[in-house]
Amino acid sequence: MHGMRLAARFTLAASLLVAIAVRAGAAEPLASWNAGASKQAILKFVDEVTREDAPTFVPVPERIAVFDNDGTLWAEHPMYVQLAFALDRVKALAPAHPEWKTKPPFSAVLAGDLKALAASGEKGILELIMATHAGMSTEEFAKIVTAWLDSARHPRFRRPYTEIVYQPMLELLRYLRQNGFKTYIVSGGGIDFMRAFSEKVYGVPPEQVIGSSIATQYEMRDGKPVLLRLPKVDFIDDKAGKPVGIEKFIGRRPLLAFGNSDGDQQMLEWAAAGRGLRFMGLVHHTDGAREYAYDRKADFGRLDKALDEAIAKNWLVVDMQKDWKKIFAFEP
Amino acid sequence: MHGMRLAARFTLAASLLVAIAVRAGAAEPLASWNAGASKQAILKFVDEVTREDAPTFVPVPERIAVFDNDGTLWAEHPMYVQLAFALDRVKALAPAHPEWKTKPPFSAVLAGDLKALAASGEKGILELIMATHAGMSTEEFAKIVTAWLDSARHPRFRRPYTEIVYQPMLELLRYLRQNGFKTYIVSGGGIDFMRAFSEKVYGVPPEQVIGSSIATQYEMRDGKPVLLRLPKVDFIDDKAGKPVGIEKFIGRRPLLAFGNSDGDQQMLEWAAAGRGLRFMGLVHHTDGAREYAYDRKADFGRLDKALDEAIAKNWLVVDMQKDWKKIFAFEP
Repeated sequence: MHGMRLAARFTLAASLLVAIAVRAGAAEPLASWNAGASKQAILKFVDEVTREDAPTFVPVPERIAVFDNDGTLWAEHPMYVQLAFALDRVKALAPAHPEWKTKPPFSAVLAGDLKALAASGEKGILELIMATHAGMSTEEFAKIVTAWLDSARHPRFRRPYTEIVYQPMLELLRYLRQNGFKTYIVSGGGIDFMRAFSEKVYGVPPEQVIGSSIATQYEMRDGKPVLLRLPKVDFIDDKAGKPVGIEKFIGRRPLLAFGNSDGDQQMLEWAAAGRGLRFMGLVHHTDGAREYAYDRKADFGRLDKALDEAIAKNWLVVDMQKDWKKIFAFEP
Repeated sequence: MHGMRLAARFTLAASLLVAIAVRAGAAEPLASWNAGASKQAILKFVDEVTREDAPTFVPVPERIAVFDNDGTLWAEHPMYVQLAFALDRVKALAPAHPEWKTKPPFSAVLAGDLKALAASGEKGILELIMATHAGMSTEEFAKIVTAWLDSARHPRFRRPYTEIVYQPMLELLRYLRQNGFKTYIVSGGGIDFMRAFSEKVYGVPPEQVIGSSIATQYEMRDGKPVLLRLPKVDFIDDKAGKPVGIEKFIGRRPLLAFGNSDGDQQMLEWAAAGRGLRFMGLVHHTDGAREYAYDRKADFGRLDKALDEAIAKNWLVVDMQKDWKKIFAFEP
């Protein structure tokens, strides 16, 4: 009896100390966000769902936050990072595939002809993805991605892609986690491509990454089980696929959802339709000097219908130029 | 500076207090396990992967534990609980389907002829599943399952199915979580069926439940988005599908895996093939008096090849009769 009471008192004391420590340590959340309506809206929402005496309080297990990746957490211009990876892989694998020299879309990649590549359309891109993302085990693929991320450089910023991540969004992810949120990535990008860096770069563990996938097959290789990656689409986690992916992997409706393009519209709608207070945000690429400026007419990462809906429904539209003090950590 | 140091000291003090409190509160882990080799093997493994100075130490994020559900966490006899649900749903829906009276496999269900139902095979069962698990939104389905679980009773034990769960396994799940493990369910059963009770009954949140699934489709209904459940198989999380499901949902190899049948063999092999110390366990149904006794020749839940492999590879085989002091919490 005495032991139990003692334990209970220790636990209470410990909780109070942790609470104080967290407050003291988190003196300035969202440091790279300029003071203003956007930052204020985030702080207000987090306060309203985490303050125990608020009528809008949400218990910790239900604090699910989902983030798109390309254009929301890291740059997606001048091309999706995963496409840059696929193109480099085609070049690396070309010596073993002499037929690629004359076979589109591979010939376009090898000739550096991005226009011809674009003309091959979605079918051509899918062919590139399958030729570069399938045919090896899951472990081999993870090693290939990691090695590429270590050596590849962003063409404009001349730094590893894992540094072309938005500092204000890293701070938002951290701030949410400090407030009991579980942070997820929900991206049209490849799930296994993102898992190779998500924990290190975003603090998001592999089990909290949802993305597009190809099928895998369990088989024995020299008496050891492997999962072989097959050239077959398993799931496309984009547009209406995002709520499907969220329900499949999480089984709970997000409390907060952040995207940057029309590919995120349904994910935001799905979050918005939940009971009680919800937070929907869009990153609007408005800063051509420090990053890129694009929206309604972009070839990819297009923000058009989702922007209209955000304005109509009063979702947060983050103006990168105005709202962000710093876009990348490496800025002077 | 001073504030930071203060915060650090508070955090340290708090961690120490929490550690003491946890030890005081967890005086007797695995209380419903009899003293013996099985209990000892579990305690030893957990010690070896959690003691920071052990050469076999594993960091918290990699402490992934996966458990089959039917026959591992709750009883699967005299029939899978989800099948009992499907049969009850057929009866409940029958008035709206007069054609079922003469149409197998529905006619077999309505006539209470389990032999004829068995004769309809996997195809027949799948037809029942689709007729009872699809055609409504994900939210509606969750409500139907919850209502059924509240009213249905196990035919032998005359209690809700959510009480026919193995007390020693509940204690094992809790003990692992207290030691930094993330506990997952990886079951051939329906993911959304299990999610309706997993958090309340097992302490496993929906995002840590992996199972078989049917496809869903995002659509607008009266201006509100819903996910409609389609009569189409999406994923079968059984046998070689289990490692595939684990990689898809978690993206990390389990440190510990527990099953009870040949359907779990590949999951255990996949866990076993990881680097360093791993723990593989099988629940062996040996207690016909308190539960059910079955293994090699069972119609379902068959434990044959996996038992041979467990014996050959020295995986833990839990003897329910000898190892468990109590099987169900309601036992006198």
